[in-house]
Amino acid sequence: MSRTVVAFQGEHGAYSEEAIRQHFGDEVETLPLGTFADIFTSIEEGKADYGVLPVENSVAGSINQAYDLLLERDIRVVGEIYLRVRHCLMAPKGTKLEEIRVVRSHPQALAQCEKTIAEHGWRAEAVYDTAGSARELAASPEPGVAAIASALAAEIYGLDVLVKGLEDKNWNITRFFVLGEEETRPAERNKTSLVFAVPHKPGALVECLNEFAEKNLNLTKLESRPRRNRPWHYVFYLDCEGHWKEPNCQSALIGLLSRAAFVKLLGSYPAAEMPDEG
Amino acid sequence: MSRTVVAFQGEHGAYSEEAIRQHFGDEVETLPLGTFADIFTSIEEGKADYGVLPVENSVAGSINQAYDLLLERDIRVVGEIYLRVRHCLMAPKGTKLEEIRVVRSHPQALAQCEKTIAEHGWRAEAVYDTAGSARELAASPEPGVAAIASALAAEIYGLDVLVKGLEDKNWNITRFFVLGEEETRPAERNKTSLVFAVPHKPGALVECLNEFAEKNLNLTKLESRPRRNRPWHYVFYLDCEGHWKEPNCQSALIGLLSRAAFVKLLGSYPAAEMPDEG
Repeated sequence: MSRTVVAFQGEHGAYSEEAIRQHFGDEVETLPLGTFADIFTSIEEGKADYGVLPVENSVAGSINQAYDLLLERDIRVVGEIYLRVRHCLMAPKGTKLEEIRVVRSHPQALAQCEKTIAEHGWRAEAVYDTAGSARELAASPEPGVAAIASALAAEIYGLDVLVKGLEDKNWNITRFFVLGEEETRPAERNKTSLVFAVPHKPGALVECLNEFAEKNLNLTKLESRPRRNRPWHYVFYLDCEGHWKEPNCQSALIGLLSRAAFVKLLGSYPAAEMPDEG
Repeated sequence: MSRTVVAFQGEHGAYSEEAIRQHFGDEVETLPLGTFADIFTSIEEGKADYGVLPVENSVAGSINQAYDLLLERDIRVVGEIYLRVRHCLMAPKGTKLEEIRVVRSHPQALAQCEKTIAEHGWRAEAVYDTAGSARELAASPEPGVAAIASALAAEIYGLDVLVKGLEDKNWNITRFFVLGEEETRPAERNKTSLVFAVPHKPGALVECLNEFAEKNLNLTKLESRPRRNRPWHYVFYLDCEGHWKEPNCQSALIGLLSRAAFVKLLGSYPAAEMPDEG
């Protein structure tokens, strides 16, 4: 039997790959791809069984490009992952912390470590990818240069981790959707994600949200995005507790269908545990 | 209390206005508008309570522009009307049938009366509108010229009906949707109209349709239209028996939601009676 293949965007050692390891363990094969859209395509074309897509970060907020793709493409959400992002400072073996003058990483990772970088007086250099900064440094080591990336990247590219947890805020968590085509069964705790639009009239959104409140379904996320080609119209991304196979969730979905302009059910899936702050 | 206003596309005397009279009676105010899109806008802006939109004709088939608007805009279908189209030959008062040399109407009406026109040796002249041909003829009568339009147009513009039922086929019926914003209650016989798309994979459409078959819900219409900006992807317009407030219909809708890429519930409404052929 062939191994399960899980697609992600980035290079080996990306945080997305760490998320895959956390969720699926070490037995699955990971498939690095160039773009978020490639993840959807790889599943559609049968090249991957699942994909892992970052959708929001506790520091940076929602990843709009990911949400736009969830609306455009027709793949289900079959799971979620919360990954505690721990930026590691890494350098070629034998490098000492006090030798470091320059740190390289993706601009967002650099921004998340801004205070620490300033305290040490390091010069920050932006590269296109966190894992890529580690791979390149391993391939062409330069004295006094370190990369900021995941512990997995250090392991893969054979670099020494000089500092673990370089990020300024402990509460740095990225949420990923697990994409796939299978039908999920209700677990003990479930979430349902969907996209909908409301008719352009007063009270329309509240009426839609009431459908969930009346069935005692907590909303865990609600976010608006402009509706393409329709100025001042919005689509709403909503997560609620429950599985579409459960009666109260079905009842809310029918109520929503009767009020919304359209509904796209992204999927129901087992709710993930939020990692500890420590 | 102000009168109910019902919007339609065309001039006074259009078949759409006949459909309004058949469905709503003589008490409502009719609002003639230039385009199908204007009907949606007039309801959104509160200028009309309802709109009447032709969606298919037994001779010409589905009216694609109407279906595209039903997907784009966010107005509900709250009713349906079947109108038996009876083309009338009309001319200024006193005109005799044997004097007629030229007949004027919308190209589609002319096409539907082709055989009769040929039998009489009349010359067919195309104008942009059936009711418009009657209005113009009444305003500037020309000897030997007749218009082909609805009986209502003859009445409104004061023309004599020389022949009633000029169409070649008796089975000339236009189906209209009644558009509005109210929530409908289940009647004795109901229909539900919706639009959905399926993921681009083998068997996806059949799986969606099975959701209706399993709940013993007859499909009364299924038609595909290309999905905008997505080559070789389609949206499906489906009508089935039942009301979304009924359990078996709800169950089919939930099943469809779980399998479709998106679902847009156009509405549930009382099923209209099909007119007799005679």
